[in-house]
Amino acid sequence: MSLSDNTSRVENHKVYFFGESKADGNSKMKDILGGKGANLAEMTSLGLPVPPGFTIPTSMCLQFYKDGEVLSDELKQNVLDCLTSVEKIMDKKFGSPEKPLLVSVRSGARVSMPGMMDTVLNLGLNDQTVEALGRLSGNERFAWDSYRRFLQMYSNVVMGMNISLLEIKLEDLKDAKEYKADTELTVDDLKGLVKDYKNQISETCGKDFPSDPFDQLWEAISAVFKSWNVPRAIAYRELNNISHDWGTAVNVQSMVFGNMGESSATGVAFTRNPSTGEKKFYGEFLINAQGEDVVAGIRTPQTLVENTGGEPGTSMQEMLPDVFAELSDIYKKLESHYRDMQDIEFTVEQGRLWMLQTRTGKRTAKAALKIAMDMLDEELISNDEALLRIDPKSLDQLLHPTLDPNAEKTLLAKGLPASPGGASGRIVFSSEDAVAAKDKEEKVILVRVETSPEDIEGMDAAQGILTSRGGMTSHAAVVARGMGKCCVAGCGAMEVNYQDKQIIVSGYVLKEGEIITLDGSTGEVFLGEVKTIQPKLGDNFQRVMKLSDQKRRLKIRTNADTAKDAGLAREFGAEGIGLCRTEHMFFASDRIDVMREMILSETTTERKEALDRLLPMQRKDFVDLFEVMEGLPVTIRLLDPPLHEFLPHTEAEMKELAERIGMPVSRLRSKVKPLAEFNPMLGHRGCRLAITYPEIYVMQARAIAEAASELVARGTQLVPEIMIPLVGMSKELEILRKLVCEEVEAVQKEKAVEFDYLVGTMIELPRSALTANEVAEHADFFSFGTNDLTQTCLGVSRDDSGRFLSSYIAEGILEADPFASIDVKGVGGLVSTAVKLGRQTKSQLKIGICGEHGGDPKSIEFFNKTELDYVSCSPYRVPIARLAAAQAHIKQQ
Amino acid sequence: MSLSDNTSRVENHKVYFFGESKADGNSKMKDILGGKGANLAEMTSLGLPVPPGFTIPTSMCLQFYKDGEVLSDELKQNVLDCLTSVEKIMDKKFGSPEKPLLVSVRSGARVSMPGMMDTVLNLGLNDQTVEALGRLSGNERFAWDSYRRFLQMYSNVVMGMNISLLEIKLEDLKDAKEYKADTELTVDDLKGLVKDYKNQISETCGKDFPSDPFDQLWEAISAVFKSWNVPRAIAYRELNNISHDWGTAVNVQSMVFGNMGESSATGVAFTRNPSTGEKKFYGEFLINAQGEDVVAGIRTPQTLVENTGGEPGTSMQEMLPDVFAELSDIYKKLESHYRDMQDIEFTVEQGRLWMLQTRTGKRTAKAALKIAMDMLDEELISNDEALLRIDPKSLDQLLHPTLDPNAEKTLLAKGLPASPGGASGRIVFSSEDAVAAKDKEEKVILVRVETSPEDIEGMDAAQGILTSRGGMTSHAAVVARGMGKCCVAGCGAMEVNYQDKQIIVSGYVLKEGEIITLDGSTGEVFLGEVKTIQPKLGDNFQRVMKLSDQKRRLKIRTNADTAKDAGLAREFGAEGIGLCRTEHMFFASDRIDVMREMILSETTTERKEALDRLLPMQRKDFVDLFEVMEGLPVTIRLLDPPLHEFLPHTEAEMKELAERIGMPVSRLRSKVKPLAEFNPMLGHRGCRLAITYPEIYVMQARAIAEAASELVARGTQLVPEIMIPLVGMSKELEILRKLVCEEVEAVQKEKAVEFDYLVGTMIELPRSALTANEVAEHADFFSFGTNDLTQTCLGVSRDDSGRFLSSYIAEGILEADPFASIDVKGVGGLVSTAVKLGRQTKSQLKIGICGEHGGDPKSIEFFNKTELDYVSCSPYRVPIARLAAAQAHIKQQ
Repeated sequence: MSLSDNTSRVENHKVYFFGESKADGNSKMKDILGGKGANLAEMTSLGLPVPPGFTIPTSMCLQFYKDGEVLSDELKQNVLDCLTSVEKIMDKKFGSPEKPLLVSVRSGARVSMPGMMDTVLNLGLNDQTVEALGRLSGNERFAWDSYRRFLQMYSNVVMGMNISLLEIKLEDLKDAKEYKADTELTVDDLKGLVKDYKNQISETCGKDFPSDPFDQLWEAISAVFKSWNVPRAIAYRELNNISHDWGTAVNVQSMVFGNMGESSATGVAFTRNPSTGEKKFYGEFLINAQGEDVVAGIRTPQTLVENTGGEPGTSMQEMLPDVFAELSDIYKKLESHYRDMQDIEFTVEQGRLWMLQTRTGKRTAKAALKIAMDMLDEELISNDEALLRIDPKSLDQLLHPTLDPNAEKTLLAKGLPASPGGASGRIVFSSEDAVAAKDKEEKVILVRVETSPEDIEGMDAAQGILTSRGGMTSHAAVVARGMGKCCVAGCGAMEVNYQDKQIIVSGYVLKEGEIITLDGSTGEVFLGEVKTIQPKLGDNFQRVMKLSDQKRRLKIRTNADTAKDAGLAREFGAEGIGLCRTEHMFFASDRIDVMREMILSETTTERKEALDRLLPMQRKDFVDLFEVMEGLPVTIRLLDPPLHEFLPHTEAEMKELAERIGMPVSRLRSKVKPLAEFNPMLGHRGCRLAITYPEIYVMQARAIAEAASELVARGTQLVPEIMIPLVGMSKELEILRKLVCEEVEAVQKEKAVEFDYLVGTMIELPRSALTANEVAEHADFFSFGTNDLTQTCLGVSRDDSGRFLSSYIAEGILEADPFASIDVKGVGGLVSTAVKLGRQTKSQLKIGICGEHGGDPKSIEFFNKTELDYVSCSPYRVPIARLAAAQAHIKQQ
Repeated sequence: MSLSDNTSRVENHKVYFFGESKADGNSKMKDILGGKGANLAEMTSLGLPVPPGFTIPTSMCLQFYKDGEVLSDELKQNVLDCLTSVEKIMDKKFGSPEKPLLVSVRSGARVSMPGMMDTVLNLGLNDQTVEALGRLSGNERFAWDSYRRFLQMYSNVVMGMNISLLEIKLEDLKDAKEYKADTELTVDDLKGLVKDYKNQISETCGKDFPSDPFDQLWEAISAVFKSWNVPRAIAYRELNNISHDWGTAVNVQSMVFGNMGESSATGVAFTRNPSTGEKKFYGEFLINAQGEDVVAGIRTPQTLVENTGGEPGTSMQEMLPDVFAELSDIYKKLESHYRDMQDIEFTVEQGRLWMLQTRTGKRTAKAALKIAMDMLDEELISNDEALLRIDPKSLDQLLHPTLDPNAEKTLLAKGLPASPGGASGRIVFSSEDAVAAKDKEEKVILVRVETSPEDIEGMDAAQGILTSRGGMTSHAAVVARGMGKCCVAGCGAMEVNYQDKQIIVSGYVLKEGEIITLDGSTGEVFLGEVKTIQPKLGDNFQRVMKLSDQKRRLKIRTNADTAKDAGLAREFGAEGIGLCRTEHMFFASDRIDVMREMILSETTTERKEALDRLLPMQRKDFVDLFEVMEGLPVTIRLLDPPLHEFLPHTEAEMKELAERIGMPVSRLRSKVKPLAEFNPMLGHRGCRLAITYPEIYVMQARAIAEAASELVARGTQLVPEIMIPLVGMSKELEILRKLVCEEVEAVQKEKAVEFDYLVGTMIELPRSALTANEVAEHADFFSFGTNDLTQTCLGVSRDDSGRFLSSYIAEGILEADPFASIDVKGVGGLVSTAVKLGRQTKSQLKIGICGEHGGDPKSIEFFNKTELDYVSCSPYRVPIARLAAAQAHIKQQ
């Protein structure tokens, strides 16, 4: 019922006409007309010279699929009606052997999907109309060349033929005639080629090329609709989080020709520089060419503006000064109309300018910052608009060293762009080797099938990390992003062989010690070293950050386990630490064995002895952290992972450890084995460890309190926030809060130092979210651990989800990877409930979030709405979060 | 604030007095006074002869712990005030060397915890008062014997001394004097023993035995409070789901003596037979003994009623006819007052009857059924009360096997039929060995001279318990009946030798590890293993089930995977199958390899071929099941576990499989390995399998539809309910519902048979519960999978929780094992939410539950309240669920 209601509403227009300054649509109707169609309508209404045509809306694409891939008679009638209007304006007739109207048929989705879907140009040509085109243009060669191009394009796009079958014929002919360029082909050559093409098409496709222009039209429209669901389009949408349900519009527009001789041309332009943001008209054009010639890169295009790098005398300004003047007026009009930098396409047909497209131009992060700030200064846009113009995620580009775009590269393989930046180094296969290399000041890339917590040190020591397995949220990816370290994950094309210490990829066998380069922003892996460049954070960046800070309500903290990371985050504007994971501190090589002795202790006394040895190390960690974060809040999470994560698992590692700590290997084995778990994620970890071994948290509480005492005695301002993980039952927190407070207060007495401190909890299990009113009774603050909350709410293990998550997104079961962007309906529901219940108990309860979602703009929008106090994210994401929080607040208002 | 408010309310009385037909308390105040104290007050008010005394309430026990294990001055003053009232009634004075008042100090918790906590008798004796007691009783020997007993008990209970240190002195003396019985000890012997005892106490404890009766009193009260938290009491509470937060009351009562000569006695009795339920006064007593002599099982007691199995002339009816007549009047009065079978304790002091305790008597399931139905017929109780009287869990006893009466048996000996049922197992002699055997899944019989509270865990682990000493009310008997575990007690013909780990009986010498069989209903002990049979359920059982069925609103289904289980459940009254787990069907030896080939398939075609071979097997499963369940609903859950569960994991198993299916072992290994998961519980399982491999569910849907078609064609009534597991997102269900329906409808067309069928889902993830309104759009029914819902809501893996769950219950973090009884606050909250949301979408949505909780009475109460339509449980629990559902409905009304 509701579906048909909806359909009838959008079906007021089956097809949207535009031409001669009048249009059925406008630029706001992108959902219906697609981006291209909406802007063609808008430009037409603005009185710009747009070749007349019409847009078949996206709803018709959905209808097409619903009807079993058939065009309805009603739709066809509407198309014919519009075609008549176009014919009137152009004074031509579609299919007429006298004055034939030719059209282009182009796709146009709601958001741009460059090159993903299909286009047919010169449609309407056949053996009769080609003659008329030759007559009317006074250029027979042009007409036959257009026909040849049309056959090539149509047979490929509509009839599904491999394009090389026709290209070979062209090459063969050029070889036979010893031509160097296509331009040397004569009219007869082209006529012959057309014949050959048509024969080849009949042979390959089992049917003749359709000579009826109307058949051509219906087939081309159908083909564009179908191109919505070709694999590369689906893949692109998945990669870019575009809904599969939108469909594409189809734009049918009368052809104009940039290849009708020396007074014809075609070009593309940006109203400002898309790479630097500089306020200068910027673009390229080709005399006597069709649009795809510019893009295809066969001929090197000329510049538009004189003295901007081209050969003197070759710019459009010099060669076609009148048309250039007209184009200049138009681009200024477009930019001030759209109030944003535009990406435009135009054609000059025998001295007459035609606008074919305008759209908001894509730009680099650097350009986005400059353009937004410039337009703000020009009073073209407001403060809020300026902030909304910048994609927060793009800021990442500015913070990491990147590969020099001008360097020569040999691509080996492509994995997932897990953590941005560029890095080169010698291949090593183990964490130990990475650490050893770092000691020798050698740059290495750590290559692993996948990483585990034991690899932390090695990851830190390496320039970059490359894994053959694991997704965007795999251990390697998450930790690397946290470290701001370049990482390419899940590079399945690469075979890692630890035994032989080599990788096999794309036919190369690379041994340990050979150099490779990673681009974490694209997922590319290159052979050898590629030069990198360190970007500078300019004034525009600082200005945008400052504007964001004035706008946002959410505080931004960082997830940092070391003083180094904390310092970096503070430079990026972090207002505190939201999550310091203490377990990472125990993986360091000088501590892991003491940690292991603690775990393997037979008695509480033995365990306490080991903990006593860890205490000064742990205290030092906190002293360092507190120093760096002076004056800002620091949230420290007590030990969280299951103890077996710290133990060796292979026989060799066990033997080695047994020798080192003087324990028979058989006894070690018998102690390690029962600690293994079926589902470690749901096992003996988090606060459960402290219920059974309270002495661990007691040691940590003491280390925090002793560190705080030391600093407070020196006059440093600080309020440590002690966080108890994995609470499910309020009583857990009640018991452990008491334990921690007693120890902290004991230290305060011993040291005769007073300081404030908070004890709070992570909300990372559905049960604690659902009983947050009770949990809040014992908590000074909540921090959402949305990674674990996602795992438990959805019942999906992050480590194991790779096998089905991509199908889930492909089938539209999930809109996005729930570990990257919060699942608002499920996990978000638990977050809202917990906030409501927690503040029922304590209206001023401080609430934040420290999961991966803390650095995701879409999730930040949700957290702003849910009235959290802060989000916490990895250091490199702090600027992203600052901007995203400002945008969220603007949008909410 | 609220805590102190609360305290002041219960502190209206610090101490509750009872005596001379007046009492501050009554039988309804069990929470405050404990069971014993409440009933002492009630009996006093009824005018029964109760020695005067007072009860220190449970709140004082909590206060005692709160104050750091110290008795407050206020409490002491209240005790002294009450003591004065007792002194007045008894015309004696506590501590007086002339007319000393002696008291007993006993624990008494809210619910009975037999033998778990401590008692001190004869308190107030010292070197002075013992003389007065001798004078006043005219029995110096009695006075010194009481003093000796008091020293023994006090030093053990209050001072923590090992009791055997004093017992050795007694035995040494008897040996030296060549006495056979204690009764041969002279006054001088006893005086010497008292001296020896006191010396030994000073030596062992490092302090003298306290001679001040008031010191004795305060220490004894403290000791009873402390006994609440001794390990065996904690273990008992955990086993019986008793809260650790309740505390115990303390009853201080003036002593009466059953050991003041031949006209004195002590005994215990049940107003009806606790084993069979027969309406006959039933009990045991000992002339010239104190209470603990009966319970401890050192002397074998005599019967109360003549001609009930004892030696002629030894019954109380014959030996103390007047007192017996008085006791008979009292027991009838008590039973009609309490309207339930009573378990009473009494003492006769020089011909005068004193009532020491009454409480609702424990009984076997068989007795519970008979007593409830008899009392209903006697119009003593109503229908509803009759149903509420029976512990649903106890019905289990009736359903489990008993010894085959026709089997050949070699009788070894006959003891007392202490707790019914039949059991075979290897002999073990200690609780530890029993527990160890259980861990190895070995069946054992625990053989002891007598059991003590330390043996609780071992008794729980064993199949049955055999003791050589003790009566029907001995520790072994009472506890075994409570557990529903077979027990033969007081098998005097058997000699138990712990040293040599053997028993000698009827000329046989049986070593540890040899097999014996017990018949707890007859008291017989047999050599070797005896076949067991399924018992016939008697008329009372059927009557109770019928009454339950009339009362309950919830339907009861069963979880059954085979026609055999389904048939059994139907006999037990199941009204349908709530869960048929199809995966179990694939583990059969003739199928597992086909299943494995399916999993290891390289292509969809290969997979379909393997599935085609599974189809007829699967169809046969359903045909059998539908036949057995004719006319009743059958819910079939499609494949749920991760595929790697079906694959071999050890190298040997892999080699074997590789050979069998003709695949190189290296290839097999490389296919098995990547299927392993970090957290399989949260992995690629349930409906996720069908999203990636739809052909699996298609095969299962076809098998169901073909089976249904076959039966419907034969005229069988059935409505298959197809259940999709592990749905988290509504779209999963939408997609799979379509898949399943298309296949079922295709089969209906092929076979030209029409039948109704439902497609529904499990709600077993927090996300599906929280979005149940959306899920319901695609579901004909919901079934809660509370096992998985508990795992995800609490973030606790059932398989890994063993390491901390017991601490959690011990520390009161969880009230009970959340996998046994539903966590009402967390998991229950999700259930309520899902019911509400689901019925928002479809008001008539059918909703059930098929997790372990479906057979747990406490959980059933919750499900009844939450308005589910049915619960589904294992076949043996169906009768339990029928009764529990009725009780739930009665309680709710």
